[in-house]
Amino acid sequence: MASNRGVVYLGPGKVEVRDIDYPKMVNPQGKPVEHGVILKVVSTNICGSDQHMVRGRTTAPQGLVLGHEITGEIIEKGKDVEYLELGDLVTVPFNVACGRCRTCREQQTGVCLNVNASRPGGAYGYVDMGGWVGGQAQFVMVPYADFNLIRFPDKARALEKIKDLTMLSDILPTGFHGAVCAGVGVGSTVYVAGAGPVGLAAAASAHLLGAAVVMIGDINPERLKHAKSVGFEPIDLTKSDKLEELIAAVIGVPEVDASIDAVGFEARGHGAQHVTEAPATVLNSLMAITRAGGAIGIPGLYVTEDPGATDEAAKQGNLRMRFGLGWAKSHRFFTGQTPVLRYNRQLMQAILHDRLPIAKIVNATVISLDEAVRGYHEFDTGVARKFVIDPHGLLKKAA
Amino acid sequence: MASNRGVVYLGPGKVEVRDIDYPKMVNPQGKPVEHGVILKVVSTNICGSDQHMVRGRTTAPQGLVLGHEITGEIIEKGKDVEYLELGDLVTVPFNVACGRCRTCREQQTGVCLNVNASRPGGAYGYVDMGGWVGGQAQFVMVPYADFNLIRFPDKARALEKIKDLTMLSDILPTGFHGAVCAGVGVGSTVYVAGAGPVGLAAAASAHLLGAAVVMIGDINPERLKHAKSVGFEPIDLTKSDKLEELIAAVIGVPEVDASIDAVGFEARGHGAQHVTEAPATVLNSLMAITRAGGAIGIPGLYVTEDPGATDEAAKQGNLRMRFGLGWAKSHRFFTGQTPVLRYNRQLMQAILHDRLPIAKIVNATVISLDEAVRGYHEFDTGVARKFVIDPHGLLKKAA
Amino acid sequence: MASNRGVVYLGPGKVEVRDIDYPKMVNPQGKPVEHGVILKVVSTNICGSDQHMVRGRTTAPQGLVLGHEITGEIIEKGKDVEYLELGDLVTVPFNVACGRCRTCREQQTGVCLNVNASRPGGAYGYVDMGGWVGGQAQFVMVPYADFNLIRFPDKARALEKIKDLTMLSDILPTGFHGAVCAGVGVGSTVYVAGAGPVGLAAAASAHLLGAAVVMIGDINPERLKHAKSVGFEPIDLTKSDKLEELIAAVIGVPEVDASIDAVGFEARGHGAQHVTEAPATVLNSLMAITRAGGAIGIPGLYVTEDPGATDEAAKQGNLRMRFGLGWAKSHRFFTGQTPVLRYNRQLMQAILHDRLPIAKIVNATVISLDEAVRGYHEFDTGVARKFVIDPHGLLKKAA
Amino acid sequence: MASNRGVVYLGPGKVEVRDIDYPKMVNPQGKPVEHGVILKVVSTNICGSDQHMVRGRTTAPQGLVLGHEITGEIIEKGKDVEYLELGDLVTVPFNVACGRCRTCREQQTGVCLNVNASRPGGAYGYVDMGGWVGGQAQFVMVPYADFNLIRFPDKARALEKIKDLTMLSDILPTGFHGAVCAGVGVGSTVYVAGAGPVGLAAAASAHLLGAAVVMIGDINPERLKHAKSVGFEPIDLTKSDKLEELIAAVIGVPEVDASIDAVGFEARGHGAQHVTEAPATVLNSLMAITRAGGAIGIPGLYVTEDPGATDEAAKQGNLRMRFGLGWAKSHRFFTGQTPVLRYNRQLMQAILHDRLPIAKIVNATVISLDEAVRGYHEFDTGVARKFVIDPHGLLKKAA
Repeated sequence: MASNRGVVYLGPGKVEVRDIDYPKMVNPQGKPVEHGVILKVVSTNICGSDQHMVRGRTTAPQGLVLGHEITGEIIEKGKDVEYLELGDLVTVPFNVACGRCRTCREQQTGVCLNVNASRPGGAYGYVDMGGWVGGQAQFVMVPYADFNLIRFPDKARALEKIKDLTMLSDILPTGFHGAVCAGVGVGSTVYVAGAGPVGLAAAASAHLLGAAVVMIGDINPERLKHAKSVGFEPIDLTKSDKLEELIAAVIGVPEVDASIDAVGFEARGHGAQHVTEAPATVLNSLMAITRAGGAIGIPGLYVTEDPGATDEAAKQGNLRMRFGLGWAKSHRFFTGQTPVLRYNRQLMQAILHDRLPIAKIVNATVISLDEAVRGYHEFDTGVARKFVIDPHGLLKKAA
Repeated sequence: MASNRGVVYLGPGKVEVRDIDYPKMVNPQGKPVEHGVILKVVSTNICGSDQHMVRGRTTAPQGLVLGHEITGEIIEKGKDVEYLELGDLVTVPFNVACGRCRTCREQQTGVCLNVNASRPGGAYGYVDMGGWVGGQAQFVMVPYADFNLIRFPDKARALEKIKDLTMLSDILPTGFHGAVCAGVGVGSTVYVAGAGPVGLAAAASAHLLGAAVVMIGDINPERLKHAKSVGFEPIDLTKSDKLEELIAAVIGVPEVDASIDAVGFEARGHGAQHVTEAPATVLNSLMAITRAGGAIGIPGLYVTEDPGATDEAAKQGNLRMRFGLGWAKSHRFFTGQTPVLRYNRQLMQAILHDRLPIAKIVNATVISLDEAVRGYHEFDTGVARKFVIDPHGLLKKAA
Repeated sequence: MASNRGVVYLGPGKVEVRDIDYPKMVNPQGKPVEHGVILKVVSTNICGSDQHMVRGRTTAPQGLVLGHEITGEIIEKGKDVEYLELGDLVTVPFNVACGRCRTCREQQTGVCLNVNASRPGGAYGYVDMGGWVGGQAQFVMVPYADFNLIRFPDKARALEKIKDLTMLSDILPTGFHGAVCAGVGVGSTVYVAGAGPVGLAAAASAHLLGAAVVMIGDINPERLKHAKSVGFEPIDLTKSDKLEELIAAVIGVPEVDASIDAVGFEARGHGAQHVTEAPATVLNSLMAITRAGGAIGIPGLYVTEDPGATDEAAKQGNLRMRFGLGWAKSHRFFTGQTPVLRYNRQLMQAILHDRLPIAKIVNATVISLDEAVRGYHEFDTGVARKFVIDPHGLLKKAA
Repeated sequence: MASNRGVVYLGPGKVEVRDIDYPKMVNPQGKPVEHGVILKVVSTNICGSDQHMVRGRTTAPQGLVLGHEITGEIIEKGKDVEYLELGDLVTVPFNVACGRCRTCREQQTGVCLNVNASRPGGAYGYVDMGGWVGGQAQFVMVPYADFNLIRFPDKARALEKIKDLTMLSDILPTGFHGAVCAGVGVGSTVYVAGAGPVGLAAAASAHLLGAAVVMIGDINPERLKHAKSVGFEPIDLTKSDKLEELIAAVIGVPEVDASIDAVGFEARGHGAQHVTEAPATVLNSLMAITRAGGAIGIPGLYVTEDPGATDEAAKQGNLRMRFGLGWAKSHRFFTGQTPVLRYNRQLMQAILHDRLPIAKIVNATVISLDEAVRGYHEFDTGVARKFVIDPHGLLKKAA
């Protein structure tokens, strides 16, 4: 009975669904924990950051069970779980956080000091993030459950909205964090770099925060078309390497109040250069278009080591940044993993009260666990979809 | 009678005190203004950023009258100056700001939209900053006087403290802005890169903000000795290229809560590399030592064009930044010219109530206008002094 | 030719449209100003706070020209108006502010230190607010025009939206300020006390800020019906004196994240008490329903002198507040005149980009200047309308 | 062996040191907890808010073990305490907080939703605060230890500074919270109402935050004399009922930037009225002296029920507030229990680095547990002392 299956990374370009261990109430160092729960995974999404690993652009070890976007039902709980019950349906922030250290107390759960022996910040199923087993699986263990988990107040209603609520584990708060850091507010003009799921979530967040105009740039025609269909102004980056001109064509001026990098280190050039990698392209173009005194939110991932980089410096996470331009414009730059807990309760409320149709916006597409490998491959081709794995067929049943 | 003399830039390495025009109530485009005042300059300081120009590291034109750190007495005022009177002793923020545009209304006077035809942000006597005549002179015109100027409430008392108050025009607010942006607060451990006047002002600001420990790093032994003598922990950067080890030797841990770059683009390497320029050295070392979740204040100047750079990329203001490291630590970066008006009133109060002996901390050294050229040369050798020009001999008399 | 007509207060219950002086470029002390403009008034609204005066609940002097909600076209400008041109269509914040004092520099234009000899803060056509002539007239003078005015970027487009844009002068920023102070954000549950125009503007603002649910309470059935018709949850305060129960009936819990007092000192009791005045009723009920740790925004006006109060203490602006309850719940209270300039540019952008149909929400009703007296009387009966005076028939023509 | 002694409340005016139960690892509902520790109490202070109970001004039940200001050594820990070890010396925030609810996650530990069945917010040994046993005792149980406790990094060094560090449990963060909420910053002029320990801590905090002038008002000559001796400007409230005049006599203007109420509901009148209770006196006087646009921090306790009040309304926590005055000045009011964890780490750093001699400032006076009763009585007479109980004689030994 205590069987489990999950998506396993087996080397560059290779993932498989395999039998894996049923979760135990222990931490990655093997120490028993009293604060954990075991979840029956109700939904778990494939993330763009998983693709960095699968493409071999990180030092992820073979055998890693993937998956950090998890929603589930509590089926077992530790002795020190006081405010959650068996049967509760909960959203899991992708950050593993202890809730007891300085940074967690200060709402910086993205850099928890206790859950990762090698550096601040933990996550499920991710390289260098502490060794916590991933959740693209049937079952997963979540530590510090009272702190980390948010219970959906009405389980039946939550199941109706599960394709939206599943985005609370990562991309929706991540996009939202990008927008908040960029200073998006009522009346802002906003540019989002990247029309993948995080970019769309950032755009949706900007809209919810009251933005006047939300533009979204990409080189992928399908993604641009989808972005347009859900209400954002598409910017086709293949058309020019002068982003300021593309922006001016939409809003009449070559600059925006706020900009968000939802691409990260695997960026490509703009205009004619869009076929080659150019890791600082997005950052440099955002400095060009963001108004003096504005801010740049950077939820897109930049890494300390990139073994797959084409450029020696980039292999150590070095970028050629036009920093002098940013300085001349008094820019502020906000980086790092999103502290999901700072936002997910509020975003849940927005979803439950019909203010944020995020599933539609990111084109949530439900697949079975067995279809996960195909989902990875398809997502990698740049389809305008966000794949939601349904390990127990519960979403299918709910729909 | 309407004569004037000032410090003039005449090409790399060359400044002279010359006869210059007496100020007129016109803007750089020659348009008459109603909002200006003419000041008899009481004190005007030589700034490290003037040195960038004098060293030929900018595109400053020959004939530029230098000087953006100005304190003076109002001797003439326009018809629309309502809240200042002749005889008032005032501090002048180095930023020229209109007080009427969006950014000025939002307290971002460092990027005023109206005072510089070529880009946001103006200053007196500075390349690319709008063409406003500098104030290392006997007389200077200050526009938008009601908005820009802060009157000292008691003139006699102000003259007693003039060596402190003269720092309100730039370096004190600039250091303070660095500290505030870096998130310095009560109990913080702080590292300041650069023991020149701005670095010392940042350190003094950190102390006034309640910091627990303030360290200050440099390669110049005289400046380090001075920093120590005024109460900061000196860090000798020639001793190691691992800043984290130097920090740990002082506070027991290799990281600080907050860090401030008071060096800018003319940075040199640390350790054995300290003789060669390495423009991203400071930024990269601050990412190494700032705690995860911390912030980096960057009052040090980074430029969009550096004709004197040793490296082709740096000539366009491009830097090789270890941005992946900053991202992994969720760092926030704050750049740009300090909006002096956001801070100078408060800092004036601190000085007048004996909480901030900034003249002593930066080793203010009064010289006559005729000694200005010597002051430039001496400052460029790295002496631990801040030169205050006394164009009318008023400081000498007050002392 | 230089004739003018305007709405004049003539004693409790009495207003008339009369010939008044054509505006002069002088301040209330008779001093000529260089910074002013004369506007041809395009629209000017009747405000609930005008009603306090007209009802005799203030010490307003007879002969006062009313009107502080003004939108107009510049037909004359002073010598020190640099960034506005004749013909510009502009929105006027109700606060008169100098843009040159400490509080204006800090974006607290509601308490400008220079425009009112008797206390901080000025306004047009209002008792105790500095003596500036009101703008329910054909023409009005606006001082410190470069600072105070926001130009609509496209005049033709602005005229199309003029019934919305006219709300930028007061009620929209005022409602928005209430929402911002109350901490409204994405996912908030919100209660607004008062379904008059400011209450509706607060509700609309809360929605635009991302609120999950917006409730609005009143005792006036017509206003409740209108509030419901534009998308808010109506709370009928005649039904119970336990507001917490009415709230719980809508959202399932008896408390909200954020609450806003859009009523002020002329509050009446709830439930059976709703026919008698009870000036602390709203504040006390908001303490009862606001969550522990929440905030209360108080744009509703409380006065220092209320000659018409039924209660001796209230005549001096004294209220019987259940402050112990607020303290036990760690409430924060935000009071005062809204600093319109902190918000109106952003809200203008929201209107121009079709994100905020405020005219429809407050039921903007255009009347001629001659109909103003009737408008006052009708508004006083509690109709669900916001009256917009059209002194030159321009709105009629535009429509 | 498992004996314990503590200070017990036995009715108005009556406390005794008695044998009490040795702490158990259970919550007030008797449920075993895994997250608690048992402390050997090293120091525990008598608080002004204890006096409210002892004077019979609350509904505190007889038999209550008092004490919420606790510092101790861990001698036993639950199975889910992961980051603390036996022998650790720790400071205990007076708030009991779960670290797992919405408000704790948002750093509002003063209104934790889980530790008190009757309302948000818990404390040790205090009426209506959840039933947690007090710590003026030899031993005490602290729940959610990993979240609530801060370990002193160096035990020997901490013992040397224990008279300072003992203030971290309540009065120092409480005074600091008052100062922060009041907007105290560099250069502020500050008035603190009340020269008791919290008032002195607020004043010390204001100084550490960079205030230019710190005044402190009281009617008690001994306390005023002490306040002066430690560097603050004393304001003798018996001299006038016009606080603005007393302020002007010190700083030349009748208003301050920031003000703090460190008195609370047992306030007395000023001037000739200083012998009678007047619960809104402090709040009303702070509105009179705080600048327009300023804020008022209210750490002083206001209660929902005051059985000992002289006035019927005050018995329900109703106050007659001059709210119209505050509104006219755009004041902001901040109330409630201090969330100690938001500040205590930083303040600990300030103490350990010799920036905050709080023991001297509040005149810390060490007494034995047996002397506690005398300490209560003496404190109630208004001596300028803060009593620190030393239940095991460890402070005596350390000194």
